[in-house]
Amino acid sequence: MAGEFGDKILRIAKAKRSKLILALDVAGENGPETLRQFMERLDDLIVGIKIGIPFLLMTPPKSLEPILRERRQDFVFIADAKLADVAHVNALTSEILFNSGFDAVITHGFIGREGGLIGAKEVATKLGKGILVLVSMSHKASERIIDKALDDIIDEALLVDPDGIVAPATRPSIVTEIRRRIPEGMPIISPGVGAQGAPFGSAIRAGADYEIAGRALYASQDPVTAARIGVEEQRKAVPS
Amino acid sequence: MAGEFGDKILRIAKAKRSKLILALDVAGENGPETLRQFMERLDDLIVGIKIGIPFLLMTPPKSLEPILRERRQDFVFIADAKLADVAHVNALTSEILFNSGFDAVITHGFIGREGGLIGAKEVATKLGKGILVLVSMSHKASERIIDKALDDIIDEALLVDPDGIVAPATRPSIVTEIRRRIPEGMPIISPGVGAQGAPFGSAIRAGADYEIAGRALYASQDPVTAARIGVEEQRKAVPS
Repeated sequence: MAGEFGDKILRIAKAKRSKLILALDVAGENGPETLRQFMERLDDLIVGIKIGIPFLLMTPPKSLEPILRERRQDFVFIADAKLADVAHVNALTSEILFNSGFDAVITHGFIGREGGLIGAKEVATKLGKGILVLVSMSHKASERIIDKALDDIIDEALLVDPDGIVAPATRPSIVTEIRRRIPEGMPIISPGVGAQGAPFGSAIRAGADYEIAGRALYASQDPVTAARIGVEEQRKAVPS
Repeated sequence: MAGEFGDKILRIAKAKRSKLILALDVAGENGPETLRQFMERLDDLIVGIKIGIPFLLMTPPKSLEPILRERRQDFVFIADAKLADVAHVNALTSEILFNSGFDAVITHGFIGREGGLIGAKEVATKLGKGILVLVSMSHKASERIIDKALDDIIDEALLVDPDGIVAPATRPSIVTEIRRRIPEGMPIISPGVGAQGAPFGSAIRAGADYEIAGRALYASQDPVTAARIGVEEQRKAVPS
């Protein structure tokens, strides 16, 4: 298991000795400029940037294309669209995002493969891009429905041969369970580090490959120091 | 049960004697102009327009604001964001969409209320807007996970006192089941009429209040005739 996305993130992670991804959900007035500033400041500390839906609605993906292309060797770019539509809509959305320079899109595993996930997967395959399937979430009500279906969601995710699995750092036992269930080498990417409560390094100890932090970095008075401390914690979690 | 969204759609539906909503997933080169053309051509035939994620990524919601404000008395505008994120992100997304003139956003019920749906609901309440909770989908793999959880998903949806429920016209037995489960007066809105296979009027016979058609209208050689035939079929389904 190593698609182009997996190879790329692994190469960057080795070069930077980091497993940290920055999440940006809000764009401010000037999305491309916000993005550029974080890239410059955190250049050698983060392996990638995950951009959320509010950001993408304020800043059309097309307008990010120049900067994503310019820095495509230095970061992975993940569109956290949380796709959960029928296949033909997932395909349209994915195509817009991939053509704007994103390396991967996040899709909800909950919708299942046939007529759902497959729409994003086919476009990803055609364009040499990746899909990351979200199988669990960090919020309270995730216990009510999503967690009960975890086994089925992982099954459906694996049916599309995803480029990675997304599961929350705030639920380390679920991360460990997923690690057991999925093929060796398939990356697990864990949001929820920092402001949502999971310590840096904790998801890696539980079996994740990369950790995503949002507010702990972008809302910090000093994002560089916050990221440096985060990366140091990650290095302690996995002696390299 | 009658929030501002429910009152508005009911008023427009009575005035136009239609229960038809146009779905637009793709924007073309000029989203606002595409929207304007459909509004003019289908003015007296449709009660509202549901705009999908690919459209919103090509055409930032902010750029739709002038036209949505100008025609706010004549149509309901639904953002089919299929929100399925944690509460604070759902809140950010909803706020962008509501502030751009949308009357309601569609959220996925499977994320549950606490820490999930509640984020969109609180913003909707504050701004006098609506949330429509999707509880079932039309595609094949919906049977694998979503349908098994239908009871729990409806429970979670009702916990946020939604302005409407979204369920596919292609699954009439599920529409009928939902009608039995939800309070009288809470509208059911059914996509999947036309290209996805459900005949116009069929969801209304099953218990829905409004039907959504996309490709059967926007991809038709003659959208006006297609919509007129659709509305006539709806009128036969419910003698007014």
